[in-house]
Amino acid sequence: MLNYNKKLPDGASDWVVTEENFQTLALGKCEAVMALGNGYMGLRSAAEESYVGEKRNLFVNGTFNRFDEFEVSELPNAADVTGLDIRVDGKRFTLEQGEITEYSRSLNLRDAELVRSFIWTNAEGKKLEFTFRRFVSLDRLHLIGMKLDIKSLSGSVKVSIASGIDAQVSNSGSQHFHEGEKRIYDKKYLELIQTTTESKVDFVIGAAHRLKLDGQEIENSPAMEIDRRKVAVAYSVDLQEGQSLSFEKVATVHTSRDLAYAQDYSLPAMREHALGDLKSVYAAGYDALFQDHASAWAKVWNEYGITIESKNSFDLLALRFALYHMVVMTPAHDRRMGIGAKGLSGEGYKGHSFWDTEIFILPFYIYSNPKTARSLLEYRYLGLEGARRKAKENGYAGAMYPWEAAWPSDGEVTPVWGAVDIVTGEQTKIWSGFIEQHITSDIVYAVWHYYRATGDEDFMERYGYEMIFDTAIFWASRLEWDEAEGRYEINEVVGPDEYKEHVDNNAFTNYMAHFNIELAMQYYSKLETERPELFKHYDELLNLKEARKVWESKLDLIYLPQPNENRIIPQDDTYLQKEIIDLTPYKDQEKVGSIFNDYNLDQVGNMQISKQADIMMLFFLLENKFAPEVKLANYEYYEEKTLHDSSLSLSTHSILASDFGDKELAYHLFKRAAEIDLGPKIHSSDAGIHAASLGGIWECVVMGFAGVRMLDGQLHLAPKLPDHWEKLSFPLHWQGKPLEISITPQQISITNTASEPVQLFVNGELQVVQDTAIF
Amino acid sequence: MLNYNKKLPDGASDWVVTEENFQTLALGKCEAVMALGNGYMGLRSAAEESYVGEKRNLFVNGTFNRFDEFEVSELPNAADVTGLDIRVDGKRFTLEQGEITEYSRSLNLRDAELVRSFIWTNAEGKKLEFTFRRFVSLDRLHLIGMKLDIKSLSGSVKVSIASGIDAQVSNSGSQHFHEGEKRIYDKKYLELIQTTTESKVDFVIGAAHRLKLDGQEIENSPAMEIDRRKVAVAYSVDLQEGQSLSFEKVATVHTSRDLAYAQDYSLPAMREHALGDLKSVYAAGYDALFQDHASAWAKVWNEYGITIESKNSFDLLALRFALYHMVVMTPAHDRRMGIGAKGLSGEGYKGHSFWDTEIFILPFYIYSNPKTARSLLEYRYLGLEGARRKAKENGYAGAMYPWEAAWPSDGEVTPVWGAVDIVTGEQTKIWSGFIEQHITSDIVYAVWHYYRATGDEDFMERYGYEMIFDTAIFWASRLEWDEAEGRYEINEVVGPDEYKEHVDNNAFTNYMAHFNIELAMQYYSKLETERPELFKHYDELLNLKEARKVWESKLDLIYLPQPNENRIIPQDDTYLQKEIIDLTPYKDQEKVGSIFNDYNLDQVGNMQISKQADIMMLFFLLENKFAPEVKLANYEYYEEKTLHDSSLSLSTHSILASDFGDKELAYHLFKRAAEIDLGPKIHSSDAGIHAASLGGIWECVVMGFAGVRMLDGQLHLAPKLPDHWEKLSFPLHWQGKPLEISITPQQISITNTASEPVQLFVNGELQVVQDTAIF
Repeated sequence: MLNYNKKLPDGASDWVVTEENFQTLALGKCEAVMALGNGYMGLRSAAEESYVGEKRNLFVNGTFNRFDEFEVSELPNAADVTGLDIRVDGKRFTLEQGEITEYSRSLNLRDAELVRSFIWTNAEGKKLEFTFRRFVSLDRLHLIGMKLDIKSLSGSVKVSIASGIDAQVSNSGSQHFHEGEKRIYDKKYLELIQTTTESKVDFVIGAAHRLKLDGQEIENSPAMEIDRRKVAVAYSVDLQEGQSLSFEKVATVHTSRDLAYAQDYSLPAMREHALGDLKSVYAAGYDALFQDHASAWAKVWNEYGITIESKNSFDLLALRFALYHMVVMTPAHDRRMGIGAKGLSGEGYKGHSFWDTEIFILPFYIYSNPKTARSLLEYRYLGLEGARRKAKENGYAGAMYPWEAAWPSDGEVTPVWGAVDIVTGEQTKIWSGFIEQHITSDIVYAVWHYYRATGDEDFMERYGYEMIFDTAIFWASRLEWDEAEGRYEINEVVGPDEYKEHVDNNAFTNYMAHFNIELAMQYYSKLETERPELFKHYDELLNLKEARKVWESKLDLIYLPQPNENRIIPQDDTYLQKEIIDLTPYKDQEKVGSIFNDYNLDQVGNMQISKQADIMMLFFLLENKFAPEVKLANYEYYEEKTLHDSSLSLSTHSILASDFGDKELAYHLFKRAAEIDLGPKIHSSDAGIHAASLGGIWECVVMGFAGVRMLDGQLHLAPKLPDHWEKLSFPLHWQGKPLEISITPQQISITNTASEPVQLFVNGELQVVQDTAIF
Repeated sequence: MLNYNKKLPDGASDWVVTEENFQTLALGKCEAVMALGNGYMGLRSAAEESYVGEKRNLFVNGTFNRFDEFEVSELPNAADVTGLDIRVDGKRFTLEQGEITEYSRSLNLRDAELVRSFIWTNAEGKKLEFTFRRFVSLDRLHLIGMKLDIKSLSGSVKVSIASGIDAQVSNSGSQHFHEGEKRIYDKKYLELIQTTTESKVDFVIGAAHRLKLDGQEIENSPAMEIDRRKVAVAYSVDLQEGQSLSFEKVATVHTSRDLAYAQDYSLPAMREHALGDLKSVYAAGYDALFQDHASAWAKVWNEYGITIESKNSFDLLALRFALYHMVVMTPAHDRRMGIGAKGLSGEGYKGHSFWDTEIFILPFYIYSNPKTARSLLEYRYLGLEGARRKAKENGYAGAMYPWEAAWPSDGEVTPVWGAVDIVTGEQTKIWSGFIEQHITSDIVYAVWHYYRATGDEDFMERYGYEMIFDTAIFWASRLEWDEAEGRYEINEVVGPDEYKEHVDNNAFTNYMAHFNIELAMQYYSKLETERPELFKHYDELLNLKEARKVWESKLDLIYLPQPNENRIIPQDDTYLQKEIIDLTPYKDQEKVGSIFNDYNLDQVGNMQISKQADIMMLFFLLENKFAPEVKLANYEYYEEKTLHDSSLSLSTHSILASDFGDKELAYHLFKRAAEIDLGPKIHSSDAGIHAASLGGIWECVVMGFAGVRMLDGQLHLAPKLPDHWEKLSFPLHWQGKPLEISITPQQISITNTASEPVQLFVNGELQVVQDTAIF
């Protein structure tokens, strides 16, 4: 459906994602995969004209609202500004009728412009050339720009366009906004002011239009419409053969959650500012605004200048696609906000942040843009409030992070009910919010990873230590003493493998909890010795000395499942005793989730079937705690029982395959991971792109193929490039120093532009690099 | 667009409303005009497959909910059961693609079945015959029946149908329901339980499907889906050439507002009952259920057996169409509910009741089905609670009825903001809820009309007198003394003509208030003399004796505008002084509301422009208070200033034209009134059919062409049939006696089947009829 081998202008094949044929069944795919955004907001790329099955979504990061007491907070779908009701000689324009030639819809990753063009002949034989352009400005975070050019290729034709701000939208039916106030100033500037129902976030959305006939601006007094949740204008223009109509629309979005209003807010002031902003972007016009936006993207690509020279241009395209989406989804401008599991590209997962951020996306930022990595970790620091509440509500001490997080102070927001149970016909209960507890140590792992890779002491002193200590306090209170075994256990959990609910001693969970407490003890000693004042501060805040005693008494008694006689580490207490069935029918890439056509979750839970990497994830995160032969044995054992039904699974397996030296498998899994969104599966991205998988693509390349790791605080590089790759180069930040790494099958080149030398292990050998070194 | 002259089977042309070509711009028209219902619920006739611009509506009478504190109560749009996602060889079926022949969509008024059929050839050349059938049972009020037959006319084809209950709907964005609980029993019985957010009305909606291949029931285990606000199943069937698939769906709707639960309600009990009901209708099957429904309609047409013999079959079709819609919209089963201004056929006017019921629809019931007329008036009796509150809130005494009414106890529910003001770009304020006050006397007029036509003393003793007395108390407190003129005035109102806001002494309002007080005084004397106990009861309740003193002191001092030197009664104090402009450009039937393209409401308010009948309405209601020459002079003066921008206008003008003996004009206006919904205007019914206009069609025929009136408690008959009518006959209830009236150009035949004689004026002469009399 999406095509990457299209004959494109030189150099475009690894920059442009293109849809070559109009297909109504592919609406969701393109809407999500080609979604636009700038971290402040995300705009799903629905076509201007409407189609059955479309999802128009505009999300503004951090504007969570809760529809009612039975639902959890989610990112509300804000009013749509992209829809146009286009009439040609009075009939509604739609690609479902008439004849289409030269169709193309493409997202150019380089300048983040969405372009759709085609020649359309209607039932009456009138021929028109359409070109739609759209961007969400990276230069002005509140701006959406749109442009439509229509040229009459045959005879005269009347074109009417109704356009405005349409808030008759919802989140699959849940309405998060009061109707609000609607206004048209000077028959030109449209304004809609809406407030979310529970969180009381004010939105001010503006829109204005400019029409040009053959490049000449035309005055055209529009018909005006104000309806329920809607304000619009309608223009009509007669086009002679050969004439072109250019229809520009600029829209602005401001909300009371904007950082600008964090301290001092009034709606009248925002409203005035927003109207001024609208007038200013309207005065600038599409072309100038787009230029500024394109320049901002040029800076991004310059900064994240990762490139692959490969016989297959898809490899680089997929990598750029991943980086593109990470940029558009990440609220780098505001530490009060996290990254949603579907970014800002769909309603899936309600805009909530999972461990996806810390484990799959954060590494990219740690090594490419430490400032943004820090902002994302500070979001978790702000989340301590909710984490402490969650711990308390569950009868524990310290900070227990929510499995799903929205606004930092919200605490747990995982919904309780999911899809149908095919046996009972009831909705399945989602247990993650209650018992998928490893998220707490995942966040601590990320803090540690960030700190060791950047050396950012300031972050640790302000935020990091407190997070590590208070989570360790949680884990210590969470441990359960087993008198018979004489050990501490963690029972009744869900591990990363979500097909196993209510298990005892999930290896990943236990090891990571152990890691968390051990880390706290290590930093306890460090602060006590080196930073007595800071130590005193945290001791007073968290009663550290008492906590330390508990940690010490429990740490070595935590049960860490060991390899059995076949070197297999049991995923949990009962996994290895469960029935094994042939999973071949369900393992096909096309069959994600198909196991549930035949079994319900209870039944799947009683078989050796894993949704995703679990023990493998443990090997990836704590790699030097396990012997290579143990890793390999477990890889072989568990992989065949893993359905990869989670998009978090493939990249981890690819990295481990790289570690094991199986280049072919590693590349195969990388490609499959890339195809989660970019592949042919038509509905895979309907609810939004897969943020963790996109972060995983970068991980496959940099941590897998280039073998970048932080081990015991040291940087490691151990490339295993896929055979058809000629070169991989990328920037890498290490301890505040920007490095440039370039890898070919023959050599590794490292450039250090900082004035101080950098130490790192290259293929296991310690090296010191000043300026440029070749290995 | 709709065709009534289509070659139909004998006798069908005056029973069937047909759409002969599929047109996406006509979606709203057919959805509303062909809407189904049974008074309990109303179902808009959207196609099974979805189209852009469609409105799927299912309303259950009386289930009002208020979205938030900024909106008023409205009838919530309940979950959709009519949508089917049909795939042919994997591609979504839509009439926007492929080739269509033999298309027809028709509503048969006789058995209230909606049938849509066509032959469709897809892009791949596969030819299929589709027939969709649907009814909302008049026999089982909680039942919706649907049936789809698909026959393969060429080769083998895979047909998939996804169907269920979809609550991802809203009222133009306002969501009235909590998400609710979803369940599938035995892979067959789908259930959705939802509760309205504010009024806490529980809905239980069920659905079940049956598939037959060439008449043989097939077991087909469906795929099941539970999503947000949605529960569905999907079936797939392979059809060989010549094979037919029959897909039946039955759906049931129950709510906690059902009369059955008025005293004793629990959700588990309703849920159990609803599931039992679903299983029972499923067991019965479409055909048997439809037969029972058709029989119920046969009874209706037998009871309301009005017929016209005319050279134009449209006349009878339009009349039947009016009766059909009155039946489907009227909650005859439950006196706690009123009739919405759009019936149950659209979101327009939010399901609220206006004076439309009492003035335009009630006469039909008074003379055709007095029991239902009484139920509708009892709804207003129950509304006294809200009316008293409204009076109090406005600083008045007694009962001041709300301009718009929802649940009886709600009081005023008129929204405050309307369409755009083309001058200021802001929303226009709607004043009716504050100052359109004639509704109170309109209701009293209807009580009086009902009482004098039926002689229902029981109604009066329980409800009627109290309504009349307490509204007279309101009016007495509402009157304003003008010292200079030495009279009581009613200032700052909107009369029936809503283009004149904030006027003083609207003639209609003043005369009707006078009528209201005068009537109260009359019944005061009657009760005091004839029914001392009842008198005592009301005196204690309402302090009648004091009230009577006030009435007496004010009645004759109420200012009743008199004809001027040109016999013109001023519509209000300033109307006749305003500018007169040429309204020709706006008077065309196609141009309803077009005045607002050029002027805003303030500007229209300052010219002699009327939206609708105002003085004419007064002549119609209180006809023997005005001399014929005054009526005619005013008719001629005001008609040319009246745009008929309200659907309440034409029928009144038609009746007056009949009174004046202008048969041609009377028929012309009748036809225009009928064309409000049935005519070619493509968007006129988008928000729903025009309930008052439909009642007005019956009024044109029976009160206009047959000249039926109640004057001073006496029945009058004075026919003026249109020239091309050969016969008009209809049933007429008078004083509890069922009469049959039959009128030809030559004679009038009256049959009285009661044992007692009936007195009536025929063409002005008093007659006594026993058995049958010919005049």
